[in-house]
Amino acid sequence: MSFDRLMEKIEALQNPTVAGLDPKLSYIPQGIREAAYAKYGKTLEGAAEALLQFNKGLIDALCGIVPAVKPQCAYYEMYGWQGVRALHDTIAYAREKGMFVITDGKRNDIGTTMEAYAAGHLGATDVEGETIRAFGADALTVNGYLGSDGINPLLKVCDAQDAGIFVLVKTSNPSSGELQDQQLEGEETVYEAMGRMCEAWGAEHMGKYGYSSVGAVVGATYPEQLRELRAALPHTFFLVPGYGAQGGAADDVAPAFDDRGMGAVINSSRGIMCAWQKEGCAEQDYAAAAAREAVRMRDEIIARIGKITL
Amino acid sequence: MSFDRLMEKIEALQNPTVAGLDPKLSYIPQGIREAAYAKYGKTLEGAAEALLQFNKGLIDALCGIVPAVKPQCAYYEMYGWQGVRALHDTIAYAREKGMFVITDGKRNDIGTTMEAYAAGHLGATDVEGETIRAFGADALTVNGYLGSDGINPLLKVCDAQDAGIFVLVKTSNPSSGELQDQQLEGEETVYEAMGRMCEAWGAEHMGKYGYSSVGAVVGATYPEQLRELRAALPHTFFLVPGYGAQGGAADDVAPAFDDRGMGAVINSSRGIMCAWQKEGCAEQDYAAAAAREAVRMRDEIIARIGKITL
Repeated sequence: MSFDRLMEKIEALQNPTVAGLDPKLSYIPQGIREAAYAKYGKTLEGAAEALLQFNKGLIDALCGIVPAVKPQCAYYEMYGWQGVRALHDTIAYAREKGMFVITDGKRNDIGTTMEAYAAGHLGATDVEGETIRAFGADALTVNGYLGSDGINPLLKVCDAQDAGIFVLVKTSNPSSGELQDQQLEGEETVYEAMGRMCEAWGAEHMGKYGYSSVGAVVGATYPEQLRELRAALPHTFFLVPGYGAQGGAADDVAPAFDDRGMGAVINSSRGIMCAWQKEGCAEQDYAAAAAREAVRMRDEIIARIGKITL
Repeated sequence: MSFDRLMEKIEALQNPTVAGLDPKLSYIPQGIREAAYAKYGKTLEGAAEALLQFNKGLIDALCGIVPAVKPQCAYYEMYGWQGVRALHDTIAYAREKGMFVITDGKRNDIGTTMEAYAAGHLGATDVEGETIRAFGADALTVNGYLGSDGINPLLKVCDAQDAGIFVLVKTSNPSSGELQDQQLEGEETVYEAMGRMCEAWGAEHMGKYGYSSVGAVVGATYPEQLRELRAALPHTFFLVPGYGAQGGAADDVAPAFDDRGMGAVINSSRGIMCAWQKEGCAEQDYAAAAAREAVRMRDEIIARIGKITL
C-alpha cells in the first residue's frame, strides 16, 4: 500500500514532513525568471519554465532531507496547459529523485468521471492498447462530498498502482467549520462523519504498518480536532496542512502522530519555498535556504515527538 | 452577471440545455482517431488531437442549437498536459462559435489557492504585467466543502470577468446521499445547508433576470429534491446533470425550472456525444447525429415546460 512506502521514507529520513510546491512567480528568484523569459517571453510558457526550474532546484536540495513533495494543482493550472506540463515535469523529477509525490488536486466527481481522474493522476491511461502514465503521482487529495461512488474508482487504482488518497476531513482554513463543524443528528459533526467514512473506505485496503491507503486531510490550525480525529481514526494516515505560514506550530501538529511518531505527514509550502526571502539571503541561495528551513522544521517536530519507528 | 448571458442565449435559442463534452476515445469515430494517430502516434498527444477534432465537429454542429457546452476536466487530464491543451483549445473554439462554456472541474481549496483556480479557469493570470487568460471559461463548477473562504475569491473574479460558478449541492450519483442527505441539528440536510449558502453567497452578486452568479449543481436523478430546492433557492441558477444516460427524463427535470421556463440548464453528455453509436449511423455523420439528439432533447423539454421568457 502506498502509505507504506511513504512511512518507510519518513522512518529512513526521520522526518514526517512534506514540502508543498505551490510556486508563485513572486517566490521565484529573479535570475530564474529572467532566464525563462529570455527563452520564452513573458508568456504562460515562460512562467511555466520558471516554475519548473525553481522546483527542480528545491527538489535537488530537499530530496535527501524531506520524504515527499506536494505540488498544488491550482498554481500550475493558473499558467494554463503550459503550467500543467510543468506539473507533470515536476512530478517526474521528484520521483526520479526518490521522493513520494502527493498531487494536491482535491478532485471529486461521480464514479465514471473519477475513473478518469484516478487513471490520469495515479494510474495509467490506455490509448488503443498503449498504457501511459499521464501524471503518475503516488497520492492524490480528494473531496468526499459525493460519497463512495467518487472514492471507489480511486481505491481500485490505489491497489493496482500502490498509490494512496487523502480525503478532506477537517480543512485548515478559517471558514472550514461553516459546513464541516455542523452537528448531524447522530451526535457527530460533518467532519467526524467524513472521518468515519475514511476508516470504512480504507478497511479493505490496509498496509503492513497499520494504516490503509485512504488518508485524511486534517488542518494544523485546529489542534483539538486533530487530537480527537487521531484517536477516532486509528487506521487513517493524516496529511496536515497549515503549519508555518497558516499559523500552526510544532505543538499544534504533535497530536496528529501516534505513539510511534507515525501516522501523519506535516506540510509546509510557503515556509520552505520562501525561506530565502525570509532569511534575506542571496537569491542564488534559495534552495539551500529551503533546505535549512526544512531541517529546522524537521528538528522542531522531532524534538516534540521523538524517534519515529515503523 | 454571467448567468445573464447564459439566460439570454437560452431564451434566444429556446433551449435550456448544455452539451457535456466528456470525450472518451471509444466515443470518437475511427476516422478521426486514425488521422490523429497518423500525425502523433498512439500517444497522449495523438489521443488529445482526436479529442479536439471530435469536439470541434460537435461544436460546429451544435452551436446554432445548444447555448452552452460543459467540458469535464477529468476526461482531458487523463490524457496529461496534452489533454489539458485540448481542453484549452476546446474552450477557445466553443467561445469563438458564441457558446457559453462551463468548465466542469469541481475545484475547491483554501482562499489563497482558490485565487489561483479562479484566475486560471475564469479570470486572467498575470505574468510580470502581461495579463493572459489561461483557460478563460464563462463558468466553473466548484465544491463548497471548505466554506466561504473557498468561494469568495471566485466571486471577485466573477464580478470582474462576467463569469459564474456552480456549487455542488445535491449531486446526481447513487451515493450522493451518504453525506448530502444527512440531517443536521437544525432540521436541514447537508445539501439544504449548502443550498442556503449558495443563496447567501450570491446575494451581493445578482444579475438582471433574478439570478445571482452563484449557481448550484442539482442532479436530475433526484426530482423531489430538485423541486424542493427550486422553491427554496429562488436566486440560484441550476446546472442539472443526470439527464439521459444517468436515467433522468424530461418529467424529472421539469421541477428545475421557474414559471418562465428559466432558472436551470440541463446537461446531456453521453446522450449527445454517442448519438451516432445509438442511431447506428455512419461515423462521418456523428456531428449531425449529435445535433439530431440535441434537437430531440430540446423539443422534449420545451414540450414539457413551454416557451422560455426572460
